[in-house]
Amino acid sequence: MASTTSVQGFIPDFVSVIPAGGIGSRLWPMSQPHRPKFLIDLLGSGATLIQDTVTRLAPLSETTLVVTGERHAPAVAAQLPDLDASALLTEPSPRDSMAAIALAAAVIEERHGERIMGSFAADHVIPDAETFRDTVRVAVQAARTGKVVTLGIAPDSPSSAFGYIKAGEALADAPGAFAVEAFTEKPDPETAARMLTEGGYTWNAGMFVVSTTVLLDHLARLQPTLAAGVREIAQAWDTEHRADVLARVWPTLTKIAIDHAIAEPVAAEGGVATVPGAFTWHDVGDFDSLAGLLSAQPDGVVRINREAPICTVDAPGALVVGGAKPLAIVGVADAVVVETDEAVLVTTRHAAQRVKDVSFDA
Amino acid sequence: MASTTSVQGFIPDFVSVIPAGGIGSRLWPMSQPHRPKFLIDLLGSGATLIQDTVTRLAPLSETTLVVTGERHAPAVAAQLPDLDASALLTEPSPRDSMAAIALAAAVIEERHGERIMGSFAADHVIPDAETFRDTVRVAVQAARTGKVVTLGIAPDSPSSAFGYIKAGEALADAPGAFAVEAFTEKPDPETAARMLTEGGYTWNAGMFVVSTTVLLDHLARLQPTLAAGVREIAQAWDTEHRADVLARVWPTLTKIAIDHAIAEPVAAEGGVATVPGAFTWHDVGDFDSLAGLLSAQPDGVVRINREAPICTVDAPGALVVGGAKPLAIVGVADAVVVETDEAVLVTTRHAAQRVKDVSFDA
Repeated sequence: MASTTSVQGFIPDFVSVIPAGGIGSRLWPMSQPHRPKFLIDLLGSGATLIQDTVTRLAPLSETTLVVTGERHAPAVAAQLPDLDASALLTEPSPRDSMAAIALAAAVIEERHGERIMGSFAADHVIPDAETFRDTVRVAVQAARTGKVVTLGIAPDSPSSAFGYIKAGEALADAPGAFAVEAFTEKPDPETAARMLTEGGYTWNAGMFVVSTTVLLDHLARLQPTLAAGVREIAQAWDTEHRADVLARVWPTLTKIAIDHAIAEPVAAEGGVATVPGAFTWHDVGDFDSLAGLLSAQPDGVVRINREAPICTVDAPGALVVGGAKPLAIVGVADAVVVETDEAVLVTTRHAAQRVKDVSFDA
Repeated sequence: MASTTSVQGFIPDFVSVIPAGGIGSRLWPMSQPHRPKFLIDLLGSGATLIQDTVTRLAPLSETTLVVTGERHAPAVAAQLPDLDASALLTEPSPRDSMAAIALAAAVIEERHGERIMGSFAADHVIPDAETFRDTVRVAVQAARTGKVVTLGIAPDSPSSAFGYIKAGEALADAPGAFAVEAFTEKPDPETAARMLTEGGYTWNAGMFVVSTTVLLDHLARLQPTLAAGVREIAQAWDTEHRADVLARVWPTLTKIAIDHAIAEPVAAEGGVATVPGAFTWHDVGDFDSLAGLLSAQPDGVVRINREAPICTVDAPGALVVGGAKPLAIVGVADAVVVETDEAVLVTTRHAAQRVKDVSFDA
């Protein structure tokens, strides 16, 4: 049954910002430099990750902006035919997450005035969209109090793959939100285990909800040249001067992650809140986590985009992606066999992290 | 430098018989029921195993006969364009090795009178053809004394995959040949190790050299209905009655291996000799032994029929057969990846024996 909150409609002054970057090199050859993770139907569901992300946010959002690089802008536009051309912000070159998100904030302010914006990566998997949206609604309310609000993911293991958020006091004027005591960098496994035992920690998935004005004001204090730069670009964005100003200013912008530019220093000042999410969330960084997300068929094999016959002999736990010919796997436990139009990968779930080291340069 | 024996020409009364059967199911998908091991270029040398076998024997032989099943006769003829149509003996159905070899012996006698015949499987790998032929010449001389002569392979390991020949006294009238004391079935590994320590044992590769008359006389004593049957068929072979007689008689022939029908009982009577061969010999029953036969490229990968790029990460000892797309192998030691037009196999050298269990039946 739908909860009362989950049937709410969109939030009139909420703008979704979707930074679309990152190749996902451990998912090669599904993901490749010309076809990054966010552009692929990773789960074989019929929708790519960026399509899923836009669909997940659409019921909440006054509008949605996608920020991506020049190389991928045509594919993004093709995958999102309902996205207005003005909603695709194309970066001339990668200058890290703060520049991308600040540019979006400044363009929003130019076009609409102050808005509550939410920034959500284009390549995450969130099966329970309703609960996710409920969490965003809580975060929007908290952001109206002037806080930078980060969504916290309930950890299901002491992962050392993510940074952690340490929650403090509940905020009196923002039900469901808590002060952030600190962000931690990706911990070693022992520290991660200790944090889970201690409690009050959530994973930092890089999802922020904040007023554009609050964000840009913090930026003006903490990274003044970056703030001035994105404001200058934003003023020119919807004019004939965009290309000139971008060419002149964009290369000068400080390369810095939003965590270092805003989240950490503002948290130290008491200006960051967190809303713990009850939704499930998956980064799906490699074929091991991908296999763990999907159900095996009765023969024990997890299939993605795969119709041709598979025979396993003494080979439990296989993941097979693509490929048109009959495939036999013999004596390799947790095998991962991936075939695309361009290449074939043979590995195991255990070794899946090392796929990032694949290189065909001579 | 060539030895004096190795530059000898053919043996005027010697006929090579090549039984071409056996799928080689542990070499799937290179070998398949419609394309058995003897029809494939297993080593990527440019010649199939049966082509190599015929080429190896041609310098010795007055003529060469190939005995194969109906299904494979057209492919054999296509691969051996120089083989006269009359030299291809097609079995209507498989009735084990004794029927195949006895049919050849009887047809030879019908056509030519008594000859020395040598029977050599179509799917063995013998890199050193000169030394092999030298050994056959010695065996032919021994066969002229009335013995059934079997070639013995010098063991390079205590394999339990082959039967063994126990050699006794040297034969005074046949230099290089020894009486056979006994044949042993495939031993367990401990027994095999003991035999190698004891000495005097060679592998039985099923290679026989014998006078057609001697063979058929033994058969007439030991398997009289089989002997009578193949003689009746042979008399009709080059006539208009072949099909009728084959259809009537062939299905009645006793199914028995030549080892049980002739080699073992005649050895017990003192009628079998062996000539130990100094040539290298490989059965190449699976991808592990195939990989062991070939040299790796500088990246450590053994390639057969493979041009496209390969990247290995933490994956030493790989064997890659076929496949047109770039391939990455990550974290799988001794991986075996085989691609044909029909199918793909992923296994390891360690598990290579279990490839025979691959089945795509529902």
